[in-house]
Amino acid sequence: MTYQSEKHIVHGGDYNPDQWFRTPEIWDEDMRLMKLAHINSATVGIFAWALLEPSEGEYNFGWLDTVMDKLHENGVDAILATPSGARPAWLAQKYPEVLRVREDGVRNEFGVRHNHCPTSPVYREKVRNINRLLAARYKNHPALKMWHVSNEYSGECHCGLCQQAFRSWLKKEYGNDLEALNARWWNGFWSHTYTDWDQIVSPKYRSDLEVPALRLAWRRFVSDSHIDFYKNELVPLREITPEVPVTTNFMRMYDGIDYQKFARETDLVSWDNYPAWEKGDNPGVAAETAFVHDAFRSMKGGQPFYMMESTPSIVNHHPVNKLPRPGLQELAAVQAVAHGADSVQYFQWRKCRGGHEKYHGAVVDHCGHEHNRVFQEVAHTGQMLEKLAAAAGTRCTADAAILYDWEYDWAIKGFCGFNTLRRDYLAECLRWHRPLWDRGICTDVISMDDDFSGYRLIIAPFLYMLKDGAEEKIRR
Amino acid sequence: MTYQSEKHIVHGGDYNPDQWFRTPEIWDEDMRLMKLAHINSATVGIFAWALLEPSEGEYNFGWLDTVMDKLHENGVDAILATPSGARPAWLAQKYPEVLRVREDGVRNEFGVRHNHCPTSPVYREKVRNINRLLAARYKNHPALKMWHVSNEYSGECHCGLCQQAFRSWLKKEYGNDLEALNARWWNGFWSHTYTDWDQIVSPKYRSDLEVPALRLAWRRFVSDSHIDFYKNELVPLREITPEVPVTTNFMRMYDGIDYQKFARETDLVSWDNYPAWEKGDNPGVAAETAFVHDAFRSMKGGQPFYMMESTPSIVNHHPVNKLPRPGLQELAAVQAVAHGADSVQYFQWRKCRGGHEKYHGAVVDHCGHEHNRVFQEVAHTGQMLEKLAAAAGTRCTADAAILYDWEYDWAIKGFCGFNTLRRDYLAECLRWHRPLWDRGICTDVISMDDDFSGYRLIIAPFLYMLKDGAEEKIRR
Amino acid sequence: MTYQSEKHIVHGGDYNPDQWFRTPEIWDEDMRLMKLAHINSATVGIFAWALLEPSEGEYNFGWLDTVMDKLHENGVDAILATPSGARPAWLAQKYPEVLRVREDGVRNEFGVRHNHCPTSPVYREKVRNINRLLAARYKNHPALKMWHVSNEYSGECHCGLCQQAFRSWLKKEYGNDLEALNARWWNGFWSHTYTDWDQIVSPKYRSDLEVPALRLAWRRFVSDSHIDFYKNELVPLREITPEVPVTTNFMRMYDGIDYQKFARETDLVSWDNYPAWEKGDNPGVAAETAFVHDAFRSMKGGQPFYMMESTPSIVNHHPVNKLPRPGLQELAAVQAVAHGADSVQYFQWRKCRGGHEKYHGAVVDHCGHEHNRVFQEVAHTGQMLEKLAAAAGTRCTADAAILYDWEYDWAIKGFCGFNTLRRDYLAECLRWHRPLWDRGICTDVISMDDDFSGYRLIIAPFLYMLKDGAEEKIRR
Repeated sequence: MTYQSEKHIVHGGDYNPDQWFRTPEIWDEDMRLMKLAHINSATVGIFAWALLEPSEGEYNFGWLDTVMDKLHENGVDAILATPSGARPAWLAQKYPEVLRVREDGVRNEFGVRHNHCPTSPVYREKVRNINRLLAARYKNHPALKMWHVSNEYSGECHCGLCQQAFRSWLKKEYGNDLEALNARWWNGFWSHTYTDWDQIVSPKYRSDLEVPALRLAWRRFVSDSHIDFYKNELVPLREITPEVPVTTNFMRMYDGIDYQKFARETDLVSWDNYPAWEKGDNPGVAAETAFVHDAFRSMKGGQPFYMMESTPSIVNHHPVNKLPRPGLQELAAVQAVAHGADSVQYFQWRKCRGGHEKYHGAVVDHCGHEHNRVFQEVAHTGQMLEKLAAAAGTRCTADAAILYDWEYDWAIKGFCGFNTLRRDYLAECLRWHRPLWDRGICTDVISMDDDFSGYRLIIAPFLYMLKDGAEEKIRR
Repeated sequence: MTYQSEKHIVHGGDYNPDQWFRTPEIWDEDMRLMKLAHINSATVGIFAWALLEPSEGEYNFGWLDTVMDKLHENGVDAILATPSGARPAWLAQKYPEVLRVREDGVRNEFGVRHNHCPTSPVYREKVRNINRLLAARYKNHPALKMWHVSNEYSGECHCGLCQQAFRSWLKKEYGNDLEALNARWWNGFWSHTYTDWDQIVSPKYRSDLEVPALRLAWRRFVSDSHIDFYKNELVPLREITPEVPVTTNFMRMYDGIDYQKFARETDLVSWDNYPAWEKGDNPGVAAETAFVHDAFRSMKGGQPFYMMESTPSIVNHHPVNKLPRPGLQELAAVQAVAHGADSVQYFQWRKCRGGHEKYHGAVVDHCGHEHNRVFQEVAHTGQMLEKLAAAAGTRCTADAAILYDWEYDWAIKGFCGFNTLRRDYLAECLRWHRPLWDRGICTDVISMDDDFSGYRLIIAPFLYMLKDGAEEKIRR
Repeated sequence: MTYQSEKHIVHGGDYNPDQWFRTPEIWDEDMRLMKLAHINSATVGIFAWALLEPSEGEYNFGWLDTVMDKLHENGVDAILATPSGARPAWLAQKYPEVLRVREDGVRNEFGVRHNHCPTSPVYREKVRNINRLLAARYKNHPALKMWHVSNEYSGECHCGLCQQAFRSWLKKEYGNDLEALNARWWNGFWSHTYTDWDQIVSPKYRSDLEVPALRLAWRRFVSDSHIDFYKNELVPLREITPEVPVTTNFMRMYDGIDYQKFARETDLVSWDNYPAWEKGDNPGVAAETAFVHDAFRSMKGGQPFYMMESTPSIVNHHPVNKLPRPGLQELAAVQAVAHGADSVQYFQWRKCRGGHEKYHGAVVDHCGHEHNRVFQEVAHTGQMLEKLAAAAGTRCTADAAILYDWEYDWAIKGFCGFNTLRRDYLAECLRWHRPLWDRGICTDVISMDDDFSGYRLIIAPFLYMLKDGAEEKIRR
């Protein structure tokens, strides 16, 4: 389906009322504060599986019904998440296959977030089931505006199921022709010729990190396995709510997934923006952020995207987490919209009282009230965005483009030789993007598979390999 | 029982005659040299289990009888160790459960020292047995002055037995109420809600290092498990030798065990002092050492403590191990006594001819004679301490105190966010202690559980959390 | 047998026609280019096992017949390799015991090169078999000049078979007397006394890295296990081709194998020379290289050695891989000959089109023709070496010697204490070699087992221990 922009800029963020289910009176306070902060959207349910399904087959949607109703009553739209980003403890306990196996060949234990095997049939089935129940329950809820599928897919799994899936993927890629694979991978080198598909194992320190073609194939497979997992999540959503647009939140230029390929499977692109302002080089950080905005805008041909997360104050995962100077948060919001974003969203609405992110910034701090700089800046940004409502859905046209292709990044990272200390594809692309940004020239960031015809200038840094047909496109 | 100071300052150290059991004539030479060095105490048997019990149930105490007799005949008191710090190879071979399991889930093999599972019923039984035999045999020996239980407890074990023990510990801590644990740990975050105690596993890279409350609970449990192991060692000692005081040697401000809690289970506190003189900043190193002396003195309300180990020359575990300048060793001895120590003891009496510590300093070097600077300095220190005999058992009274609490250290290390590069609780406490030390103000180092009433000044750096009742104490 | 020098300097290198078996027409182009490059030797078959034996017991020697014939027809001698350096995938799949077990106790999976257990009876049998077939087939081939056994032996294995082999090795070393081992290793320390040979395990992070004598014994065993593996390879070669000299290529002063001991089992010594010119300190790098040349020349009493590998341009395994300045490659060739080498050989003849070393320099670059600097420099070097033919087989006599002994290096690396930051045996030996090199004084690099009598000066840096008889030799 095609995403239709709202008539306003979306202003919201991650809202985790499930963490306060023991004190629901705070939900009313949330509504009061959202109004004050000019919030019009809330992303709910991202990590709520344990509360939605406290034990296998036992469901608890009452709290979410209440929250959805409250949001709607208070003029706040809901972006509803599927909860696959973190599984309940009972699920990991009963079906260990849903957890990942590391490079060392040993399965993880319960814990952290992104820790699921993307191949596991059990996990896929359990995810489809909870997604189906969510879609069926809220398909007609007036608050429901969009699906936020899972959260920041990432990582990889080396379990036996994934090894088999990798072999199947390779068979398809090489037309079931092992000799063709041997020839293209140059497996005569170091006696690496395979004579049986089962001899192929994922590249890791215990097997082999020194076969560039194997590493590249594995990166492609891992990326595809996340996309395939996502498509499995979509099955009930498309079936039950065909008119609700679907997105998943990307992480900057994260190198584990080919976002350009993934973007094609979404209705709109969204990403989580955490600039490292604490580096001190504000123009440099702003230019990097501009590059990423440009990249996500370009992934769907200039269609508006969402800035699904950003911090209203500090983060917790940088080495030093400093509060940005007054006004910087608002400037970053305007930058997003100027680059084509239809939203300014925060992680998180209310700071958690415990857990790993208890010191990650939020609109509502531990103090719980609105009387501080961060809250007031968010409210001010909300007012400002209301004035910019006309910008929603607009597009910008670029004359210039930087060629950035995930597969190049993987290939460049995967070989041995030359200058290993300064072989950084992204840094090189940023270096070429910067002068255009300095001059205010609107620039797309495109892949080798995109249409080259509309640009007056295409810069292709570190053009390491050419995909089929690319040479001809460049010559034209 | 209450520890009664000797009428003199104890001057001695670790004595390992078991390493020379093949050449017992060297024991007589030891006696001659101890006299020359003004030694009046020797700590024996610390790692002697393999010689005491060469195979399961076969005992060999003859050599220790001889050594104990020789010590007494030569006016040297014995501090007798329990040998649990290192198990014999046969014990590890026959009962692998006595060895630790690492974070990766795999059990260690035989080797090194502190490598025992503190939960293992087999190891606890074997330790009680050898301790019982030692106590029974030497209870009336005139040389026996004190028990030195094990050696520098440290580390942790992740085996199945320890996982079960951790769950039992948690059940007790949370009144068997899993919902209370979920609420206090804020487990709604990232769907971490437990529905079965067996879902809880120790925090490690393979499970989860991102739950601050789990990490803090694990630190408390590990600390308690060492204390509990120690109390198991005490059973036969208290029963058979109720009048012999008991200590165990602590390691500076080692963060793996809450020494303030552990100290309550000892008759007197002792610690191993290895200042990093090679840093070059002698005043800084001396100030740090003063802080640690103050901390150990404060743990039992100002009662004299023992400096159980210190090097008479170099150590072997610093990056660069330099011989201190002439006189520095004696100065360090006086510093200990001035801060409330009743002893000046060395590791080690005679330098080993092999093994990991063959280049660790000793009173008697590889040359084997008394004609060198180190030996002469030790002898001179011994004479000096004889003149200071009146200082034994004296106490100093502090008007100022620094609040240092092991649980704060754990909590501060366990969260994510803010400035991760300069979040060092101990360094912060040292920074506040230094000006008091520079001015010669006697300062205690106390925990949140101690009595605050006697001080004119209490400095509480990095006051990260308040235990029950603490707020009221501070206000008073 | 005794190695007889050729009447010319050998000029050649690693030639891997097996990587181009799908396009054998390139082999004729190779012959044309070898003539242009003044190449007179080619090392073939190093990693060709998968092509020679595509499945168990199925052999394919046709391609090698053709290559051997072509070489001979074109006046190029063949140095034939045994292929044990990399096993076929089917072999690893069918017999997992041929793969190594790491320190963590888990067996590797298929991949990389040097990944075989040196103890595995299966692997030893399979290697003898393929070696026997190679020897039988080419024993009378006129191109065959020398055996190149395996490739750059290295690493270690901690599998059960190796643990048993280690214990057998120790039993032999200590006359089956465990008490003697306990006494010499000073195992009374930390209760490390063994009462059963099976209690002994290889030193590793999971067992014990803190027993210097165990570490030294393990290093000796590992070194011997490689030599023993090599001797197993030799069985069919000596039997079938007693007149063909045998070598294996060493790696600089690689510390995992006692090359001085290994050299005695070879007919001539050869080594792979990859100076780190990119460091910028050309005289320093040249001096280091001179030391290594001197060491390998001295291993067989001054007999000429081969420089079996060197790069004609860049390598791929340094952090920064820069093309040396014009002429430097030729200078390095002359340096080798001047220090006693009978050969100047390259890795590799033709740059691979894929695999880990696709960007490692070669005589023939990816462009495939002779019209570039690297190729022309190689050709020029070839011409120059033809003029130096009279130097083949000549010897130099040294008045000075540096004592460098692998066992000292192991012992020095294996203890704890003193200055751990600057304890580098090789660096210390280089420091003493440098002034002699600066003055053009021909210097041998000898072991403690060598004859000391012919030298006017012997420098013995860091003389950490004395082997039996050494003291007397030094006094004489």
